[in-house]
Amino acid sequence: MKIHTRITELLKTDLPIIQAGMIWTSGWRLAAAVSNNGGLGVIGSGSMYPHVLDEHLTKLKEATDRPFAVNLPLFYPDIDAHLDNIFKHEVKIVITSAGNPAKYTPLLKDKGITVIHVVPGKKFAEKSQQAGCDAVIAEGFEAGGHNGREETTSMVLIPLVCQAVDIPVIAAGGIATGRQVAAAMALGAEGVQIGSRFVASEESSSHINFKNAIVQSKEGDTVLTLKELMPVRLLKNKFYNDVLAAYERNASKEELAALLGRARAKRGIFEGDLEEGELEIGQAAALINNIMPAAEILKEIYNEFKSTLNDLNRKFRQ
Amino acid sequence: MKIHTRITELLKTDLPIIQAGMIWTSGWRLAAAVSNNGGLGVIGSGSMYPHVLDEHLTKLKEATDRPFAVNLPLFYPDIDAHLDNIFKHEVKIVITSAGNPAKYTPLLKDKGITVIHVVPGKKFAEKSQQAGCDAVIAEGFEAGGHNGREETTSMVLIPLVCQAVDIPVIAAGGIATGRQVAAAMALGAEGVQIGSRFVASEESSSHINFKNAIVQSKEGDTVLTLKELMPVRLLKNKFYNDVLAAYERNASKEELAALLGRARAKRGIFEGDLEEGELEIGQAAALINNIMPAAEILKEIYNEFKSTLNDLNRKFRQ
Repeated sequence: MKIHTRITELLKTDLPIIQAGMIWTSGWRLAAAVSNNGGLGVIGSGSMYPHVLDEHLTKLKEATDRPFAVNLPLFYPDIDAHLDNIFKHEVKIVITSAGNPAKYTPLLKDKGITVIHVVPGKKFAEKSQQAGCDAVIAEGFEAGGHNGREETTSMVLIPLVCQAVDIPVIAAGGIATGRQVAAAMALGAEGVQIGSRFVASEESSSHINFKNAIVQSKEGDTVLTLKELMPVRLLKNKFYNDVLAAYERNASKEELAALLGRARAKRGIFEGDLEEGELEIGQAAALINNIMPAAEILKEIYNEFKSTLNDLNRKFRQ
Repeated sequence: MKIHTRITELLKTDLPIIQAGMIWTSGWRLAAAVSNNGGLGVIGSGSMYPHVLDEHLTKLKEATDRPFAVNLPLFYPDIDAHLDNIFKHEVKIVITSAGNPAKYTPLLKDKGITVIHVVPGKKFAEKSQQAGCDAVIAEGFEAGGHNGREETTSMVLIPLVCQAVDIPVIAAGGIATGRQVAAAMALGAEGVQIGSRFVASEESSSHINFKNAIVQSKEGDTVLTLKELMPVRLLKNKFYNDVLAAYERNASKEELAALLGRARAKRGIFEGDLEEGELEIGQAAALINNIMPAAEILKEIYNEFKSTLNDLNRKFRQ
């Protein structure tokens, strides 16, 4: 099970498939399962205290000798403590997001770390390349969780970013199946980052209630909302209805922030409160029909990718 | 220049590329240029009086002996007069949109007409199949002009619709290049409908000011707005700023309708008023860099489609 691109060369993995480092979801267990089966496992440090990240990195290194990464949201309040852990554990790949890539990329590169930045648009991709990033993850409007303001979808974003930079591009947003990996490659990507599908994996630390809700969700069940704060795609639920009601009464930005409050994502994703929690997930949820081990997910995606290429070849090339 | 799918069998065209029938843009001249070069030319009847449609059909039939179609928005006020023209001119393919496919499909099918319905989601695709449509056009959130409420993007919508129906699926929304046609095929589509790219063709009846604005536009320059009325994707301009100002003062639905008024699309698209007009266009505008004849557009897309398949084959199949 191997697919060769500049991304697998860069990451030293068998597959150009990156598991997104998502809050309350991507601990050492999921990362190890993905890394041990040919993908790039990623710890989502955004929801971890520094001592928790330390613990997860210790366990992950015991559980795999394959490449893995840490996702580091650049707005994390105690970022220096996270960086200390990254250096202490000699993490070789860091995926930065939600911030200016120029700020931390030189520091990370000085330590010999491969740096990949997540971008919602071409302009940020160009900035990432200038800052010295080794690759970018271009994340479309359909992605779960925090999202860009320009609402560019993967179908348009991937070719735009591929035209704009020379470093390899990883496609993210809406991708859950092998057909979609083939589509992303056709658009010019050399790898994919998959989030929602791995939220619904056996090894993710998302609550089983949330995993079941993803499996049961249908087209149109997610929405990009709270654009006045930081746009976030989530599964519609009672909390979202409360947000809608707030919009109805023309609530101010401050009122919306108060309604969101703190720890709603934890409450939904980690504690399984489907009513009051913020259930961050992408449009790809509609394509997810069961909870599988990460190894099976990777195998299914790989096989479908290969059979899609065979189909295209049979149908369209003489 | 041939690509064979169930869509080319159904339409009897060389290419599975449909030019979208767009208001103020898609008259007989554009339709003839597309049909004469292997695609399916489509007249956009939504902005035509019945006698204007009559005239365009007469001219189109003089200009081509290849298959062509009429796009018929089902909310058109004088739909019976349009249907009379369709029957009088023995139009063989009708693309219906914006309405219930059950209402007119049986009538059209009784006359031996091939019927394709435009859908924004899987549920409507299933309804179209039940109504007897021969194919569906699945149109993603990134598309220009009127759009669905669920905001599902092409990357997710195409595989969802392909799973849901047995009739062939045509992908629309965001597609302007051959790479994207290959991506749509990887996702399971058997044809594509291309809008924005043909707005910026030499033969389209869009005003040159609008064509130039498309060529100059960048990522993030379009937005889906007026969701309280009928969601529409357009190029941001002074009119859109006025809409934003109306939102700022919490304008009612009626005030928004009054602001939109009548004939804004004509003013922008056909008369070239870039300030006050409603400039309906898709996210793909960011990928369009010049105004070309339709024949050249089709050739470029075909060649890029073929070279993308060759690339995928070379890179990923041993």
